[in-house]
Amino acid sequence: MILSALLTSVGINFGLCLLFFTLYSILRKQPVNADVYAPRVVAEGKYDQRSDFNLERLLPSTSWVNRAWHPSEDELLMRAGLDGVVFMRIFLFSLKVFCFAGIVGLCVLLPINYMGSQIFIDFSDFTNKSLESFSISNVNDGSKRLWIHFGAVYAFTAFVCYLLYVEYSYISSKRLAFYSSSDPKPNEFTILVRGIPKSSTDSLSETVENFFSKYYPSVYLSHYMVYHTSKIWKLINEAEKMYKKLAYLKSTDQSSQRYGRVGFFGICKPKVDLVQYYEKKLEDLEDKARMQQSLLNGKELPAAFVSFKSRIGAAVALEIQQGENPTEWLTERAPEPRDTYWPFFSASFLSRWIGNVVVVLACVVLTVLFFIPVIIVQGLTNLNQLETWFPFLKSILDIAFISQVITGYLPSLILKLFLHFVPPVMIILSSIQGYVARSQIEKSACNKVLWFIIWNVFFANALSGSVLYRLNIFLDPKEIPNILAIAVPGQATFFITYVVTSGWTSTSSELLRLMPLVSSYTKRIFTTETGEEFEVPSFPYSSEIPTILLFGLFGITYFFLSPLILPFLLVYFCLGYIVYRHQLLNVYAPKFETGGTFWPIVHNSTVFSLVLMHMIAVGIFGLKKLPLASSLTIPLPIFTLLFNSYCRKRFLPVFKGYPAELMIKKDRRDENNPGISDFLEKLITAYQDPALKPIQFSGRTDTHNAPLLASET
Amino acid sequence: MILSALLTSVGINFGLCLLFFTLYSILRKQPVNADVYAPRVVAEGKYDQRSDFNLERLLPSTSWVNRAWHPSEDELLMRAGLDGVVFMRIFLFSLKVFCFAGIVGLCVLLPINYMGSQIFIDFSDFTNKSLESFSISNVNDGSKRLWIHFGAVYAFTAFVCYLLYVEYSYISSKRLAFYSSSDPKPNEFTILVRGIPKSSTDSLSETVENFFSKYYPSVYLSHYMVYHTSKIWKLINEAEKMYKKLAYLKSTDQSSQRYGRVGFFGICKPKVDLVQYYEKKLEDLEDKARMQQSLLNGKELPAAFVSFKSRIGAAVALEIQQGENPTEWLTERAPEPRDTYWPFFSASFLSRWIGNVVVVLACVVLTVLFFIPVIIVQGLTNLNQLETWFPFLKSILDIAFISQVITGYLPSLILKLFLHFVPPVMIILSSIQGYVARSQIEKSACNKVLWFIIWNVFFANALSGSVLYRLNIFLDPKEIPNILAIAVPGQATFFITYVVTSGWTSTSSELLRLMPLVSSYTKRIFTTETGEEFEVPSFPYSSEIPTILLFGLFGITYFFLSPLILPFLLVYFCLGYIVYRHQLLNVYAPKFETGGTFWPIVHNSTVFSLVLMHMIAVGIFGLKKLPLASSLTIPLPIFTLLFNSYCRKRFLPVFKGYPAELMIKKDRRDENNPGISDFLEKLITAYQDPALKPIQFSGRTDTHNAPLLASET
Repeated sequence: MILSALLTSVGINFGLCLLFFTLYSILRKQPVNADVYAPRVVAEGKYDQRSDFNLERLLPSTSWVNRAWHPSEDELLMRAGLDGVVFMRIFLFSLKVFCFAGIVGLCVLLPINYMGSQIFIDFSDFTNKSLESFSISNVNDGSKRLWIHFGAVYAFTAFVCYLLYVEYSYISSKRLAFYSSSDPKPNEFTILVRGIPKSSTDSLSETVENFFSKYYPSVYLSHYMVYHTSKIWKLINEAEKMYKKLAYLKSTDQSSQRYGRVGFFGICKPKVDLVQYYEKKLEDLEDKARMQQSLLNGKELPAAFVSFKSRIGAAVALEIQQGENPTEWLTERAPEPRDTYWPFFSASFLSRWIGNVVVVLACVVLTVLFFIPVIIVQGLTNLNQLETWFPFLKSILDIAFISQVITGYLPSLILKLFLHFVPPVMIILSSIQGYVARSQIEKSACNKVLWFIIWNVFFANALSGSVLYRLNIFLDPKEIPNILAIAVPGQATFFITYVVTSGWTSTSSELLRLMPLVSSYTKRIFTTETGEEFEVPSFPYSSEIPTILLFGLFGITYFFLSPLILPFLLVYFCLGYIVYRHQLLNVYAPKFETGGTFWPIVHNSTVFSLVLMHMIAVGIFGLKKLPLASSLTIPLPIFTLLFNSYCRKRFLPVFKGYPAELMIKKDRRDENNPGISDFLEKLITAYQDPALKPIQFSGRTDTHNAPLLASET
Repeated sequence: MILSALLTSVGINFGLCLLFFTLYSILRKQPVNADVYAPRVVAEGKYDQRSDFNLERLLPSTSWVNRAWHPSEDELLMRAGLDGVVFMRIFLFSLKVFCFAGIVGLCVLLPINYMGSQIFIDFSDFTNKSLESFSISNVNDGSKRLWIHFGAVYAFTAFVCYLLYVEYSYISSKRLAFYSSSDPKPNEFTILVRGIPKSSTDSLSETVENFFSKYYPSVYLSHYMVYHTSKIWKLINEAEKMYKKLAYLKSTDQSSQRYGRVGFFGICKPKVDLVQYYEKKLEDLEDKARMQQSLLNGKELPAAFVSFKSRIGAAVALEIQQGENPTEWLTERAPEPRDTYWPFFSASFLSRWIGNVVVVLACVVLTVLFFIPVIIVQGLTNLNQLETWFPFLKSILDIAFISQVITGYLPSLILKLFLHFVPPVMIILSSIQGYVARSQIEKSACNKVLWFIIWNVFFANALSGSVLYRLNIFLDPKEIPNILAIAVPGQATFFITYVVTSGWTSTSSELLRLMPLVSSYTKRIFTTETGEEFEVPSFPYSSEIPTILLFGLFGITYFFLSPLILPFLLVYFCLGYIVYRHQLLNVYAPKFETGGTFWPIVHNSTVFSLVLMHMIAVGIFGLKKLPLASSLTIPLPIFTLLFNSYCRKRFLPVFKGYPAELMIKKDRRDENNPGISDFLEKLITAYQDPALKPIQFSGRTDTHNAPLLASET
């Protein structure tokens, strides 16, 4: 790609960013948009709804930057939870890494690359110059200057490993501190028990009661059996819809709307009073749901939430094999009550097993299907090929600006658009795998999305189709560095445009929240409902973390190949830091708290990026006829993997559970806490399936923001 | 190989077996051999040492068979521990498997093979007939009869999996029953804690005391720090030798032996009274050892044995991460006190890490070196090649009997001799890997020996050199079945002779205990010492289990290829059952009790053999032009592996620890046990390093069988 195409793309995206920021700073000041730009603040009732009009409201300003920048990490912890803090640490970590990389890359490596003469260039026209002259490809074969690249690879690896260690250590200490300072939570005292053995004399509930009161008499508190409630959930959801319709009808006075035809497409039926009709229907649904609830008596699933009086008691039951038969009395950590994914419990062991197989197959199919956009994208970057395929386009493509847009901007936009569909699909796939908590689904989807985009964005584009289909090259490990070394450097400019499109513009559109804004406007235009309940969104970790990590991968692998990518990445990370900090504080409300367990994903991905970079380095130094440097690079991935295995030992256990020391300390502190007896009383009912609570819709239609279910029994 | 060569080998080995059995049944009756043939009975003081001579003592008899057959499994459990019972179950399991295989193979498959006409045979001379005509190679290509082989493979797999399940279930229930019925043992109440953090104010011992009495006040009993005692061990061993010499000198009256020269080769020194000299030396050594003991004060290693008042207390401390830093307060199961491998504690983390690397390298080197005997063996089985290499041998090799001995008997004898050195080497390798117990070393060595002989005996011989060196064939998984199918069937007769030599003759020589017998005689001839302490040997699991499993692998893979091997295997398993039962009851004394944890090795190896058989079947049916059968065999390994993964879930956890249910039950039973307080008192000193107990040799030289160390403090 030539410089001018890159500049076109950067120009377009820079313009879009400016536009989005300006729009945002104006729109956010309009009170009518409060539920789009500050839903969390509105939900907390803190939004200052002055509607007096003044000129300032129409002028763009940057006050929001200040408000995002200002709060300390502790304030962020208070508002976004440890997961939010960990998410922001990814940006801080990346900024540190790429500041170092940027200084080394731009001040040392870039001049060396530029001074080389391996690639013949016409110096007369700077803007048409190939960007290759800034990359390592331009350094002469066998040049002694490559040793500087070699040194840079070593120094960079050491620096990143040091930072990884520091960050892992910081976050694990944060996690422990967060745990020891937090108030008692139901999930600390509770475990999920599965595989309760059937007894001929006792019910399952009695079996659980007997088992735990026999073996843990001093710490056992209570248990809650799990039921098959999917039918009730269906009825409740229907009733809820009905209830909303009814509420809407009652709020309108127009009699034309109160009467209408019901039934199949509203034909062949006399007009009826819709309020009466819906009220009748709602009552019917409620009766049905109550009937279903009563039918469940004695039909427990062999799973239960068992609560204990102390954390250490729950930990003992969790960690030690309980029954003589290891397939019975299986214990696992209970999720937070709000985080529990109830539909899971409908899944039998077999259906979960099939679910897992389906997920694997679906991932394969998705990867294969994703080659289509990748091929389109790669076709667009090679315009010549496109012209031979579609000769009639030649006249259009000959216009300089259009060809620059097509090669510079369009490919990464198309890729970005297709990638939008990946995270939701992965969440659906993860949810059929049988996780008991939404946070587990999110984490599993995060991992899936990460490896999907690393494969489909990085490898599929870098190896550009043809090589990729000969999958058997991966069976010959000695060839991998060479293949990577040949293919990867050439795609530097495409990835720069991808960073600019997907990084810059997406981040600023995240701030603008284009989709919620549009849907909020259309709602306001097409429906007359007002004051309808809106849900505060939760943060989409599974789509955001993989994106950041992909950019990290770009930066780490291209750091010594083509340092030109680094300033674009630095701009992205700065932007992202401010924008996401703002969004976490004002827009999103956490729906679960995993205690920072997203960090190991970040750590592993960074280590993977480092090792990939080393492999490319081995290949490049070989291609550049510096075999000694190539061989001397080989110890680097080995050291990196040893470092990783040490980190796994040193830090990972902290992310899997909590040490006995802390649990016992917290338990002892609770003994002097007067509120603990209240807490334990509430704990008894904390894990009741919401579908089993008394159902009460009718008769409440006067209050508008009535809760879906009576929350207290 | 021709039938006559096989018959020669069988004849030689059958003769050797008869000879060994006869010799044994005579020699064992001589009281002078009691310490060779019934060392355990002698050590227990139950040996009836009548020396009255009668004729019966010179006649061979089979009464020992009766005495080996008679005791029930419970008696075996009493005398040989659960490990002994599990070892005998391997034979029972194999007998069941190969009875089924034998019936199917000999009654169904063998006639079908023989009726084929794929291999051209001269029917005139039966003894010179190639044994290939009994194998699947003789079935005509594309014959419908191969479907019977196909059915046999399915039926056999189903039968073996069923037996594997039944046996795993039986042994795991045995293990749990053994645990719940056994008396309290120190290792049930104790854990080994490593990585004790250093504190600036307290000693390591105080740190341990503070930590456990703070967090486990109700169950913590005591702890014993671990010291670096290799120097003391050296001194004690020297002192022991000195003490033995002294005891011998005192017991002789000849003054000529009492005076002698000491020092460098006994020259240039005046004669001294040796008794006085050695007594002086012994006292010096004792003083040195005591000095070393006192020097250790305050120089603990960061490891300790921590004992608890209850089993569940120990389990809690074992299973839950203790400290905030996961590299501190590392806990693991304590071995039995008698099983503890003290030298290990001298090893630092780094030296253990290096040890592991060395072990890996040593295994590779050993495997490469082992190709030498394999090449010799394979050369001998192909006599023609030998003749072209060494033409002068031609005249000797032309004698029929010699050529039959060389092709039939010698190769497997050579292989067997070389294999003798493998288990001791593997034990040495395992012991530098840093295990804390002798049983762990034995188990690790057992695994190493197993895979070593599967690779070096089965694969190296089956693939016979040339193919094996092209290791890259294993990188192309699709080719493996074909290569196996071409190479494996041809080696059937070699493996039959191996079974006969290594199985039959080794088993009968195990009964005769040739090496201990010879060493006992030489001792009696060359030294005049009498009544010297002899050690009761412990059972060499690490060399015996892999041998049996290798025979199992032969049987399973050749079951449908060449069923002729099955009767030989059945004879081996019958022999082995009687002989090893006898040895376990009379010769060996258990030095540790792992509670049957050798069984998972047997299970895994059998599953591996099944999958290997399936792969060969896929290849064979392909070669035999029955592609449908080949494809239909592919689900079989998949089902087998699924079955295995189910077994891992269902049974393996039982072999890693004990369920809370049982531990709590045992703890409650102990509460009513009056002896438990005595036990707990003894527990406090159970894990003292023997090298740290008071040293007392001198002044005890009058008693002869004095213990090495004062056992009670």
